[in-house]
Amino acid sequence: MERVSSALKTGLLAGAAAALLPAPALADTLIYNVDGLTIDEKGNVERFASLVIDDDGTVRDILLRGEKRPTDIDFSVDGEGRVMMPGFIDAHLHVMGIGFAALTLDLSQTESLEEALAAIAEFAEANPGRPWILGGGWNQEKWGLGRFPTAAELDAIVPDRPVYLTRVDGHAGWANSLAMQAAGVDASAVSPAGGRIERLAGSETPSGIFVDAAESLVTRAIPAPRAVERDLALSKAQEVLFAQGVTAAADMGTSIEDWQTFRRAGDRGALKLRIMSYASSLETMQLIAGPGPTPWLYEDRLRMGGIKIYLDGALGSRGAWLKEDYADEPGNRGIPILTPAQLRNTMSRAAMDGFQTAVHAIGDAANAEVLAAIEELSETYEGDRRWRIEHAQIVDPADIPKLAEHGIIASYQPLHQTSDRVMAEARMGLGRLGGAYAWRSVLNAGGRITFGSDAPVEPADTPAGIAVAISRTDANGEPFGGWLPQETVSRAQAIAGFSSDAAFAGFAEGRFGRLVPGERADFVLVDRDPMLSSPAEIRNMTVLETWIGGERVYKRAE
Amino acid sequence: MERVSSALKTGLLAGAAAALLPAPALADTLIYNVDGLTIDEKGNVERFASLVIDDDGTVRDILLRGEKRPTDIDFSVDGEGRVMMPGFIDAHLHVMGIGFAALTLDLSQTESLEEALAAIAEFAEANPGRPWILGGGWNQEKWGLGRFPTAAELDAIVPDRPVYLTRVDGHAGWANSLAMQAAGVDASAVSPAGGRIERLAGSETPSGIFVDAAESLVTRAIPAPRAVERDLALSKAQEVLFAQGVTAAADMGTSIEDWQTFRRAGDRGALKLRIMSYASSLETMQLIAGPGPTPWLYEDRLRMGGIKIYLDGALGSRGAWLKEDYADEPGNRGIPILTPAQLRNTMSRAAMDGFQTAVHAIGDAANAEVLAAIEELSETYEGDRRWRIEHAQIVDPADIPKLAEHGIIASYQPLHQTSDRVMAEARMGLGRLGGAYAWRSVLNAGGRITFGSDAPVEPADTPAGIAVAISRTDANGEPFGGWLPQETVSRAQAIAGFSSDAAFAGFAEGRFGRLVPGERADFVLVDRDPMLSSPAEIRNMTVLETWIGGERVYKRAE
Repeated sequence: MERVSSALKTGLLAGAAAALLPAPALADTLIYNVDGLTIDEKGNVERFASLVIDDDGTVRDILLRGEKRPTDIDFSVDGEGRVMMPGFIDAHLHVMGIGFAALTLDLSQTESLEEALAAIAEFAEANPGRPWILGGGWNQEKWGLGRFPTAAELDAIVPDRPVYLTRVDGHAGWANSLAMQAAGVDASAVSPAGGRIERLAGSETPSGIFVDAAESLVTRAIPAPRAVERDLALSKAQEVLFAQGVTAAADMGTSIEDWQTFRRAGDRGALKLRIMSYASSLETMQLIAGPGPTPWLYEDRLRMGGIKIYLDGALGSRGAWLKEDYADEPGNRGIPILTPAQLRNTMSRAAMDGFQTAVHAIGDAANAEVLAAIEELSETYEGDRRWRIEHAQIVDPADIPKLAEHGIIASYQPLHQTSDRVMAEARMGLGRLGGAYAWRSVLNAGGRITFGSDAPVEPADTPAGIAVAISRTDANGEPFGGWLPQETVSRAQAIAGFSSDAAFAGFAEGRFGRLVPGERADFVLVDRDPMLSSPAEIRNMTVLETWIGGERVYKRAE
Repeated sequence: MERVSSALKTGLLAGAAAALLPAPALADTLIYNVDGLTIDEKGNVERFASLVIDDDGTVRDILLRGEKRPTDIDFSVDGEGRVMMPGFIDAHLHVMGIGFAALTLDLSQTESLEEALAAIAEFAEANPGRPWILGGGWNQEKWGLGRFPTAAELDAIVPDRPVYLTRVDGHAGWANSLAMQAAGVDASAVSPAGGRIERLAGSETPSGIFVDAAESLVTRAIPAPRAVERDLALSKAQEVLFAQGVTAAADMGTSIEDWQTFRRAGDRGALKLRIMSYASSLETMQLIAGPGPTPWLYEDRLRMGGIKIYLDGALGSRGAWLKEDYADEPGNRGIPILTPAQLRNTMSRAAMDGFQTAVHAIGDAANAEVLAAIEELSETYEGDRRWRIEHAQIVDPADIPKLAEHGIIASYQPLHQTSDRVMAEARMGLGRLGGAYAWRSVLNAGGRITFGSDAPVEPADTPAGIAVAISRTDANGEPFGGWLPQETVSRAQAIAGFSSDAAFAGFAEGRFGRLVPGERADFVLVDRDPMLSSPAEIRNMTVLETWIGGERVYKRAE
């Protein structure tokens, strides 16, 4: 009997392990001569000059300038004085949405209907093989159109295939006639509960715009993407995020298809992004995680810890649920998607098994309702629950103190504030904005906040998010002095919101989010110091390199 | 800045790793003084006296009696002369079905309707909290009833709750009136394609028996098990299988819920059984594995490599698709579940992405149809495909040579032969059994076979399977000399069918199935030598210990 060679055995096992685990960094690495910063346990900025990475991809040490460097290092890298920060953690985005958006038509940069129509025509011509033309990002408010666009306008440029384009906030869709035909939608179609079919003036004919729950009347006719397309989209999403310095994110509304895509990538070592997953429904949560949150998988790269619940829609499409009528549409207060009992039952079902709940609430009525629900649920579900409210855009100032109770986390997206400002003033009227995007008020009341982008609704642009968080001004520096500038936060709070606080919001503290010994070595090298730069300069910050678990996943082309 | 202690760091990482990987054996282990056997590459039995297990759970070496033992061993165990065999690999079973069967009422040992009714009454009384009484394993043929049982017979003993009990072969169900009422089934219900509602004589009233596709008319009303119940069932299934020496199995018809249950166990290190998974549908296969078979996960414990496809039903319920009429029901040839085009499209869709196909075919018409489909598909899909036919119970003798073509594997369940013998004679008539359970004929024609149990349809009793494979006699030694005894196989072929050949049928050769250096150390210790025992003695073989990956997962109570 011959002994199999040791090399062969090692090869066999290495193959088996490689299928399961991403390769760790192979060596103890020192990155010296950096201008490093992280958030400490008190939320303050701490500086350092060198980072020591263990061969398992965790931070072994951080060193001050002049501190003795360890001698047992395999590789040393000169940081050339560049700024090192914790990898950006986005507390609210949609991983697969980012990937699919990158593979479909992006209208978010169009400034007019004419520009959008030209882009659609160009995309259709460039993609003759696609059975449907899909995309999104349009915003009739930005276009200054004063109305929704119509199916007829699409028909004129794409007469041969269905077209379906999602509004920038994801709360409305724009279809051409062939898409409506494929979906069997005609003048006899009725608006479903929680949604609205827009009609042509003085007619029952659908105009081509489908709001909230009505979107599914058309989207259900869109062929589902195949697994290979999903895998491509995830790969694309990681590419997009790493180029922007994002190393971890909360995925808000993970479907079973999304989850399987994450696992396929994890199983072959291709999942580098850290994903804190919130299921799209109770059924999905149960199917995937079962009796409780999953363990952290793939070396802290994936965990399903909770559920995303929608309570209302968005301000732009007047789907947000308000306490009073929309200022620009008397008689309309928006649409609550769940009844009070449905909301409580869903939250309760998740909480009883130890899952976290993250409730989308935009209007002040929706926020008040979530707060009331948490108040009641807290009587039963004690301990460290970290109830999350996603967006929390319009909160009645009288309700803000309640956000500090029961460990609630308000999960904000700074870029929504600048995108929505003019629209929010129109929808709410100037007198009802006292609790609008009220970041500092929540902090002052003793509450917790975290920051994200809601990508692909907004770009996953953390530097821009930090700039807005400290200035309440947009890319043009407007409005001068900031919009409701009393709601700005400090630089340290902004950075924490996109790093340590975002990790905390996903029960990931101690694993990643800070550059301290024992946590994963996730960081970015950037071209300027956010503590010393103006908001406009921060907005133009360039990510030079992105590292996850001690492995470089992005380097900017020279 | 303080360095976190090495122990703390190790603890943190050990925790993360433990969530992902089952703990391997911790030491190099020698098990000496065993009467060991394995199958060699030529299919012959090879003997050995000691097994050396590496600290990673693979076989490091096997030693002959008198060969020098290695000196760098951490632990030595005296095998006390017991027989060591490769862990049993079951090429066809239903993991979750075994678990749920162990948690529900088992009627498979009942010898009469009266005995079954008494068991049902006892179970209902013992489980007052269960909203439905569920179970299976009944067989009206075994009861000598000469007819199906009825709803009325159940109503008399369980009047307060729905009852639904599956026939031993899974191809029919027996409901009481409350179950039919809950499912909305009454005299107006029509039999679906591929299924049949039994009616009371001279009436349209359903009798309580639902065959094949008609089963879903009732089963869809049964509340789905919760994730926690699924997890419990998997744990129970592993317990049942390990006590029977089964260390690996092909799971035939994995649903998304089953898969998530496997992964939850794998993620927390609780999946010990090796599962070769075949998806229950194209949609499930795509959802889970996506563009191709998954990698081997959890140290060779889980892989989705193919799809299970049903082409017909079973002989017992006359659902098997025959070339000629049933001998005991003129005019009935059974039910093909798929059209020729559907079969080819499904197989083709799987094969084009590199998935293996395992087609359930019991009747001779079904087997001929699969063979024709493989013949056509092989023109496009070349290479090592290992097309599987599951059961292959009745094959037209003229078709047997075709089983040796294109690398087809006939996946047989020896215990079905003894359970079905009398019924098969009735269904087919004596003149049409030339290709019935024709194990040796297939081998003689140059084909490949493998063995399994179809548990929970039959018990996962490998020793009994080996005994039948070499004798064609049942537990009572009947019929004397064996049924169609020319179809017995050798002891080595029987053992290979339940070990190395079953691994090959699941693309697992080289990973497990043999006790040779480099493969996983999966083995059983048993109380007798299958090479030297009579079939009756083999049937009574006792599994003393079961080891997987060098870890003991079962030890018989003294």
